[in-house]
Amino acid sequence: MEPHIHITRRERFNAAHRLFRPDYTDLKNEEVFGKCSNPNWHGHNYVLYVTVAGPLNPETGFLINLKWLGEHIREKVISKLDHKNINLEVDFMAGKMASTENLAIAIWNELAPGIHNTGATLYRVRIEETENNYVEYYGS
Amino acid sequence: MEPHIHITRRERFNAAHRLFRPDYTDLKNEEVFGKCSNPNWHGHNYVLYVTVAGPLNPETGFLINLKWLGEHIREKVISKLDHKNINLEVDFMAGKMASTENLAIAIWNELAPGIHNTGATLYRVRIEETENNYVEYYGS
Amino acid sequence: MEPHIHITRRERFNAAHRLFRPDYTDLKNEEVFGKCSNPNWHGHNYVLYVTVAGPLNPETGFLINLKWLGEHIREKVISKLDHKNINLEVDFMAGKMASTENLAIAIWNELAPGIHNTGATLYRVRIEETENNYVEYYGS
Amino acid sequence: MEPHIHITRRERFNAAHRLFRPDYTDLKNEEVFGKCSNPNWHGHNYVLYVTVAGPLNPETGFLINLKWLGEHIREKVISKLDHKNINLEVDFMAGKMASTENLAIAIWNELAPGIHNTGATLYRVRIEETENNYVEYYGS
Amino acid sequence: MEPHIHITRRERFNAAHRLFRPDYTDLKNEEVFGKCSNPNWHGHNYVLYVTVAGPLNPETGFLINLKWLGEHIREKVISKLDHKNINLEVDFMAGKMASTENLAIAIWNELAPGIHNTGATLYRVRIEETENNYVEYYGS
Amino acid sequence: MEPHIHITRRERFNAAHRLFRPDYTDLKNEEVFGKCSNPNWHGHNYVLYVTVAGPLNPETGFLINLKWLGEHIREKVISKLDHKNINLEVDFMAGKMASTENLAIAIWNELAPGIHNTGATLYRVRIEETENNYVEYYGS
Repeated sequence: MEPHIHITRRERFNAAHRLFRPDYTDLKNEEVFGKCSNPNWHGHNYVLYVTVAGPLNPETGFLINLKWLGEHIREKVISKLDHKNINLEVDFMAGKMASTENLAIAIWNELAPGIHNTGATLYRVRIEETENNYVEYYGS
Repeated sequence: MEPHIHITRRERFNAAHRLFRPDYTDLKNEEVFGKCSNPNWHGHNYVLYVTVAGPLNPETGFLINLKWLGEHIREKVISKLDHKNINLEVDFMAGKMASTENLAIAIWNELAPGIHNTGATLYRVRIEETENNYVEYYGS
Repeated sequence: MEPHIHITRRERFNAAHRLFRPDYTDLKNEEVFGKCSNPNWHGHNYVLYVTVAGPLNPETGFLINLKWLGEHIREKVISKLDHKNINLEVDFMAGKMASTENLAIAIWNELAPGIHNTGATLYRVRIEETENNYVEYYGS
Repeated sequence: MEPHIHITRRERFNAAHRLFRPDYTDLKNEEVFGKCSNPNWHGHNYVLYVTVAGPLNPETGFLINLKWLGEHIREKVISKLDHKNINLEVDFMAGKMASTENLAIAIWNELAPGIHNTGATLYRVRIEETENNYVEYYGS
Repeated sequence: MEPHIHITRRERFNAAHRLFRPDYTDLKNEEVFGKCSNPNWHGHNYVLYVTVAGPLNPETGFLINLKWLGEHIREKVISKLDHKNINLEVDFMAGKMASTENLAIAIWNELAPGIHNTGATLYRVRIEETENNYVEYYGS
Repeated sequence: MEPHIHITRRERFNAAHRLFRPDYTDLKNEEVFGKCSNPNWHGHNYVLYVTVAGPLNPETGFLINLKWLGEHIREKVISKLDHKNINLEVDFMAGKMASTENLAIAIWNELAPGIHNTGATLYRVRIEETENNYVEYYGS
């Protein structure tokens, strides 16, 4: 059996967002989401790490073509998020709270089918919102 | 004469902005400012470095009280920028293009008087907008 | 079932310590612990990463209130370690070898009850002692 | 039972390599491996993280002697890779595609016996090739 | 007069090189250049910082169009260095010792004319060869 | 005339210190130096950057032999500071306030003569005490 490898690709995007529920009062939004609920938005330099796992291809010494993986992430995710408003402009976040947690889950759902078509497995999506906070999602 | 020292304090803020001129057409804004002109905003984790220079106080071994410097930066600058929209909410950026260049100049102007009152000199304001770009202003 | 998420919060503290056993001779301490056994102490900028896991709250899009998590870590751990001597001044390290390994275990024990009260699970405590070494503890 | 700990040591090496198969045409090599197939070589600052796991020694508060671990990694791996050509000069890579994936597996095989002799377990080998890509191997 | 600003753009390239003089014996090359003289090459992830200075354009709030600056650096420098052998393949390094010092000077010479055509001034070229060493050149 | 280059070498040390004046009361020490005055010490992972300037040697493409520079820094400075108590054990800090500012000046004085003997000029000593603070000294 071929050895099992994990490989991770980093991509970045800069976006605006806010955390709030339209069914909450302003006061309640402020209480639950703090300064992240600012109606005039704020933003981040998000850093995305996508980890793929599977057996090594003995001919190429690769698990997955990294150039393809980078293009897949940029096409499905980065092009829709970079320099955008996550609440207003990102189709796969429509109707969801724009938290980093929900973003990680939605990015998983965007990336998984294409990766699984290559025979590799999407293992983890990790998003760093600031140098002090990051979220990881393993698919369920 | 006491030796001359430079000391730098790092602070951070997360904010939304856009680059555009109201007197440009949408097309011209897009042409000049690219995806940074998105009317729905985008944002960054800005990193601010404030460098102060001057002679060492021989009694304390300090150039400036760093705790005071941190509080001064947070009071005059970070509290107004963090989790805010630079175009809409920041008094010292009102009526200015929300570029990192203009931000560095405006932050200099906010910080300089208080620092100069301590007898030290504000030497440089540096802002990193992304890991690939930073701006420095030396006061003129 | 709600998706399961991991979220990590970074905090920092600067502390002094030494590694030694009072029942060892100086020579034996030097032999086993090397320059870390210096009786005059040395110190580090420790970086602490606390990872919490659990199902997402569908109403807030959060797993845990990150502001609370930061305050919990600062109250239970950072306030006791920052600018302190780990061997002499930290109640939860009393009578223990001041190794990063023991520190990770002790920090776990300080943080776990409060986190588990929120319904989330403490998943991992990670401490970086230098850029070249870090320790992780998963609770058993 | 003693608590189970993970400890990670970072080491670095700078090396040249290329990705190609001698049984492929130049065109096929270019197609599969892109600019990494350049016959005149290119190179990287590789960063290696070695993670070891096991129960804590209650006498020393250590899982493994970190000084020994650093020397073991430098003797078995770094001394053979640093400032070398991975394709031409590294005995444990002879006859293998010089991919980061294969490098992680080969480094695992070099390091595991010595680490297991100490009673600890080699848990993971991680190699960062660039700031955007890293590979992890868990031993099978 | 418009305020004077410094702006820095980061780009990266991965390349192979060696340090040696053909008129030295192997022994002398080894003596002077150490393991950097390995005839089979080694390589680095080089990080390039290009700093440009000048007055702010009051209409755009810019000193220079950063998108153009990135493209200029990639066209003149990165495309010739990335995944290349600096000794064998880089026209602007032909006949020169492939030291980071000479590389900084040569990159300055490649970039300066285009930047000066925009009205801005090339202020500094900085190259990091490893996390422990970097070189800066100010143009004379 | 040969081009003028700046080259920087990074080294690190972990040390304990405290800030206090024996002629101050405990209260006054606490007031001026805050938690840095803790009589039981605290410590840091200090990062030292030494920048040397001068004309390039056209034969070697070097300004200074970097291997020698690293050894010089380790012999004169790191070996005396690493895993030490700056207040109690470092000859060149005896009788001085153990501030990062004074440390930068003292390190300059230790390093300058040997560097100037090579024909190069010591340009700057920079010390990072934490990720949020650094000090620079230019020699007067």
